[in-house]
Order: sequence, then structure tokens, then C-alpha cells
Amino acid sequence: MSKPRHFASPEDVEQAFYEAVSLGDSDQMILLWAEDEESVCVHPTGVRLNGMQSIRESWRTIFTTSRIRVQAEAVAHWQSSVMAVHHLIEVLFVGDDPSPHGPLHVTHVYVRGAHGWRLVSRHASAADDSHQAMADSVPHTLH
Amino acid sequence: MSKPRHFASPEDVEQAFYEAVSLGDSDQMILLWAEDEESVCVHPTGVRLNGMQSIRESWRTIFTTSRIRVQAEAVAHWQSSVMAVHHLIEVLFVGDDPSPHGPLHVTHVYVRGAHGWRLVSRHASAADDSHQAMADSVPHTLH
Repeated sequence: MSKPRHFASPEDVEQAFYEAVSLGDSDQMILLWAEDEESVCVHPTGVRLNGMQSIRESWRTIFTTSRIRVQAEAVAHWQSSVMAVHHLIEVLFVGDDPSPHGPLHVTHVYVRGAHGWRLVSRHASAADDSHQAMADSVPHTLH
Repeated sequence: MSKPRHFASPEDVEQAFYEAVSLGDSDQMILLWAEDEESVCVHPTGVRLNGMQSIRESWRTIFTTSRIRVQAEAVAHWQSSVMAVHHLIEVLFVGDDPSPHGPLHVTHVYVRGAHGWRLVSRHASAADDSHQAMADSVPHTLH
């Protein structure tokens, strides 16, 4: 496994997250999570994982069975010197299926530690069927 | 409407949130949200509301139609001097129905401003049917 990267901003971690998903790279995926036993990952299925090991195994299983590409759009964000929260809307493309899955509401929580920024929590859940959430999201670039 | 209260900690806001729900008090509910156009509230139905006005109207409608009591259990939390995130599991009791609804995964985001701590984001979604999420949550007191 490669050495942990230094992420200079929450945006860097987020970009690495979506790269890891599109590459199906569970090693890169796990490097961007904080080594925190409290780390939380809630999948859109309603399954919640706690801690690095469970989260790593879960993504490994997902990447083994599916190839996923994500279109993410920023909805809102809050940031302090050591902590950041991004709220996003995601649309998923699975395998060669051209029709989008989702949308999903996503809350990402980032914390800055000794080795830069890391993800400590991802909460993803299905948006309502009407897709209104997508329509009325205000697109804006993060920084 | 009463004057905004000063909340000395994220825990104070959270307690006021659950009080407001159990009282069905939409005035108290809205006072604990930050006056931030980016404020986000995702209901377990998958509907997302943005900004104070939409959030206020939504809770007013909920309180008009249902009487809700919530049992919340802390799963994980992260805190800095001006920002805090609480991840919780909620079980809902609606009206006189003794059977619990949920559980829900909940991510609360708090920000400290000129008038103390306020809620800026609530993301709630249904946990998986197996209720495993409830069983393996690690109960611990906040702090």
C-alpha cells in the first residue's frame, strides 16, 4: 500500500474520493479516511459502517462487484480551520448502464490532523423520487 | 416569537431540538437553526429543504399533522471551537402508536456564531430493515 498522501484541503480529499470510486481503488479510498475508530460511513442502502476496517471492507466489496462513476454537485458547505462539512447531490452511473441512479443526498465531514485533511464521515441516502432535490440545488463551485 | 436563545454548546442546541420536536413547537424549532441561506434539512422521506423559510414551513407542517417523540442515541461526534458534527441513531414514536418507527441515521452539523451555537444541517435517513445499525451502535455520552 502506498504511503498516506497529504491532502491540503477538504476539496483535495473529496476529489481523491471520487477518483477512488471511479478507479475502483480501495487502497486509495481507505487512505483518505481518518484513522479514527469513530469514522462513519452510511451507504444509501441504510447500512452504517463504523471504523476504518469495516469501511475498507465495505468499499472493497462494492468495487469488486460494481464499476461506478459519480457526478457530484455541491449544495452547501461550512468550513473552519480544522473541520469542514460538504453537502452534495450525487448521481451514479453503474457499469455500462447509461441511465443515472439516484440522486443521493450526501453529507461529507472532513477533519484536519497531523497529515492534512481526512474524511471522517460520509452519510449518503436516496433523494425523493420527484428529483426535485436535483432541480432546485444551487450549483456553485467549492472555493 | 420569543427572542433567540443563547446556546452555549452543540449539546444545548441538540437538547432544544428534541424538546421542540416533542412539544411540536415550530417557533422553538426555528430559533435553534442558524440564519444561513445554506442551511440544509434532509427528511427521511428524501426531501431536502434549503434555507430557514423552507425548513420552518416544513416543521410547521409536520407538527400540524403529527405528534412525535424521539429517542436519540449518540454514535460519533467531532468538535472544533466553532463547528461540531454529531452522528446519531433516532427511534421515533408517532402519536399514540407504541411501536417504534425507524431507526434513522442522523448527521447534525452545528456552527458557533455571534449568538452561540446553532444547527446548520440535519441529514436524516432510514436505517436498513435489519435494525443492525441500532444493535451495533456504541452508546456513549457526548463529551
